Amino acid sequence: MAGDDEEMIVTPWEVAGRIDYSRLIKEFGTQPITKDLLKRIEKHAGTLHLQLRRGLFFSHRDLDWILDMYESGIRFVLYTGRGPSGPVHIGHMIPWIFTKHLQDVFGSKLYFQMTDDEKFLINPDFTLEKTRNFAYDNALDVIAVGFDAKKTKIIMDVEDAEIIYRIALKVAKKITFSTIKAAFGLTESSNIGIIFFPAIQAVPCFLESELTGENVPCLIPAAIDQDPYWRITRDVAPKLGYFKPAQIHCKFLPGLGKGGKMSASMPETCIFTTDPPEVVERKIWNAFTGGKPTIKEHKLHGGDPSICPVYYYDYYLFEEDDDKLNETYMKCRNGELLCGDHKIMLAEKVKKFLKEHQKKREKAKDKLDDYLFKKK
Amino acid sequence: MAGDDEEMIVTPWEVAGRIDYSRLIKEFGTQPITKDLLKRIEKHAGTLHLQLRRGLFFSHRDLDWILDMYESGIRFVLYTGRGPSGPVHIGHMIPWIFTKHLQDVFGSKLYFQMTDDEKFLINPDFTLEKTRNFAYDNALDVIAVGFDAKKTKIIMDVEDAEIIYRIALKVAKKITFSTIKAAFGLTESSNIGIIFFPAIQAVPCFLESELTGENVPCLIPAAIDQDPYWRITRDVAPKLGYFKPAQIHCKFLPGLGKGGKMSASMPETCIFTTDPPEVVERKIWNAFTGGKPTIKEHKLHGGDPSICPVYYYDYYLFEEDDDKLNETYMKCRNGELLCGDHKIMLAEKVKKFLKEHQKKREKAKDKLDDYLFKKK
Repeated sequence: MAGDDEEMIVTPWEVAGRIDYSRLIKEFGTQPITKDLLKRIEKHAGTLHLQLRRGLFFSHRDLDWILDMYESGIRFVLYTGRGPSGPVHIGHMIPWIFTKHLQDVFGSKLYFQMTDDEKFLINPDFTLEKTRNFAYDNALDVIAVGFDAKKTKIIMDVEDAEIIYRIALKVAKKITFSTIKAAFGLTESSNIGIIFFPAIQAVPCFLESELTGENVPCLIPAAIDQDPYWRITRDVAPKLGYFKPAQIHCKFLPGLGKGGKMSASMPETCIFTTDPPEVVERKIWNAFTGGKPTIKEHKLHGGDPSICPVYYYDYYLFEEDDDKLNETYMKCRNGELLCGDHKIMLAEKVKKFLKEHQKKREKAKDKLDDYLFKKK
Repeated sequence: MAGDDEEMIVTPWEVAGRIDYSRLIKEFGTQPITKDLLKRIEKHAGTLHLQLRRGLFFSHRDLDWILDMYESGIRFVLYTGRGPSGPVHIGHMIPWIFTKHLQDVFGSKLYFQMTDDEKFLINPDFTLEKTRNFAYDNALDVIAVGFDAKKTKIIMDVEDAEIIYRIALKVAKKITFSTIKAAFGLTESSNIGIIFFPAIQAVPCFLESELTGENVPCLIPAAIDQDPYWRITRDVAPKLGYFKPAQIHCKFLPGLGKGGKMSASMPETCIFTTDPPEVVERKIWNAFTGGKPTIKEHKLHGGDPSICPVYYYDYYLFEEDDDKLNETYMKCRNGELLCGDHKIMLAEKVKKFLKEHQKKREKAKDKLDDYLFKKK
């Protein structure tokens, strides 16, 4: 989706350039999700979730093993999270929506980690009050996704330090600075908080095991940029006597502008969960597309959905129906569907989705306590 | 006290060689405690504590400033601590005894930090259960010193992480790995927990300020080997809007063997607070002394108290009376006092002290909750 000339960078703190997901699988040493694996999941789910069907979740580590365990009667926990550095946009919600699906299918307990400590440590301007407030604000979006309150615990890193720090110490003792340096590109000028932080992010992988005394497998649905954390955590796990956490990795939802990940730091390129309808309309109306510069040219040569954020929103999130999606694709390719019309169609779907989400988000304010790891 | 041939090493984790305290003042960039400063303290205390009178506390940072503050009506807190890696020996208690004196004189609140996290992180064989148990055991010795329960809070790093971690994050954000590397000699092979730890050890300096919202000065009585922590903390303090913590540094009580600091890892060189009378007698009887190899030679040439642990025990801890101490010194020098007799005299005093201490230590078991930062 981005300019060809820009170098691909994928780290937990930066995603830039044209993302080559096949190359990421090779470089990160993960496994592609095969058709066989999809069939196994479909067998349990009864259906194949849009995000699997369309390859948004594309890579994994030990997903086959997690299924082996599950099929032999051993439960696993889910773990995903959020770095609360601002309001939530639709791109953030992709792995959450999928995680809810997995919770529904496998009946798994979910630990959702809010890394307000991390965001405080990497952003020179953030206070702990600021990242805490983001964490509580963002938790409303998490709850609005519809996770099972009985099976979901939201961890607030700073407020839950009493349990988190203890386990992080066990992890930290097994990780050297060399390892962190190599995995995250940290340097001697990095602050000692962010150097320690990977131990904190590892904790939810082992939390269920620590709390129950059993060795409980863990599956992490998350965007591929978080993988360096899990590589390190997987090395540490056997040293603590625990299973290595399994992962399932998703791609990034492209921004509405030309290029790259949707970014909260460029508000016009992303749709926030609290955006009112008129803002949604404006942002989509101003979006970059794969269309031609004039209607005449567009009708003559057709558009290019493969570089079009408007198409990608349908593809990744808003058009459940494969036939309808295919129709949109064909009509765009042959110039029949004009970008303006496509934008209006998409805006309707997004507005409808957000109207529902915002209602649930409002209701979530009364449910917070049901979801927090530590009750207020 | 140690062999001349051994290089002096003084870090928070290692003390070895012949300790040259004047050189330490220069190398660490601290200030010697002057006669004027002693007079100012004496004015407040009404007397000059043995440990000041005899130069056991010999160096400081900003002690004059703390007295300025106090004299202008601004209260300060005291902060000292213990790395719970085993049972407490008499050497550990020197700064605690002095800290109690300061609490009595200045009416200060004391934060006493048990760094069970640190000891877990640096010792490959220690579990968190082990260091926690040491912390609770050692707390009994702290309480037995007689601190004011109303003004003393013992912090257990791991169990009190809820408050400690939050403040440590603020400190950690201002410290780079380069700084830690230079101050402590850590390397890229150091674990990320111990790299983060200096932020934890800094917390009690700012705890009263964080809890009250005032900027409260802090004075740290501690052995000089802990100084690197305070150097870093002093750099961070103004960045957080707090006063730099002041320090008053003590020397190490020599071990009963030939050379160096009393060490819990060599049990025969130190007297533990729980040693029964017969063990005290044996350890002192087997101690190295400054005496001559035979009684005849000793009576002829006299002993050398300047290299004698038995004399140092009197000097630093057990002979309050300056005239009696001087008499012992002279009788040793002129050969009149035989080492065996001196050992018997010292053993009596140590046994008497420990009998009292052990009683208070037993009673402390019922008082723990009064002293813990977080009540059980």
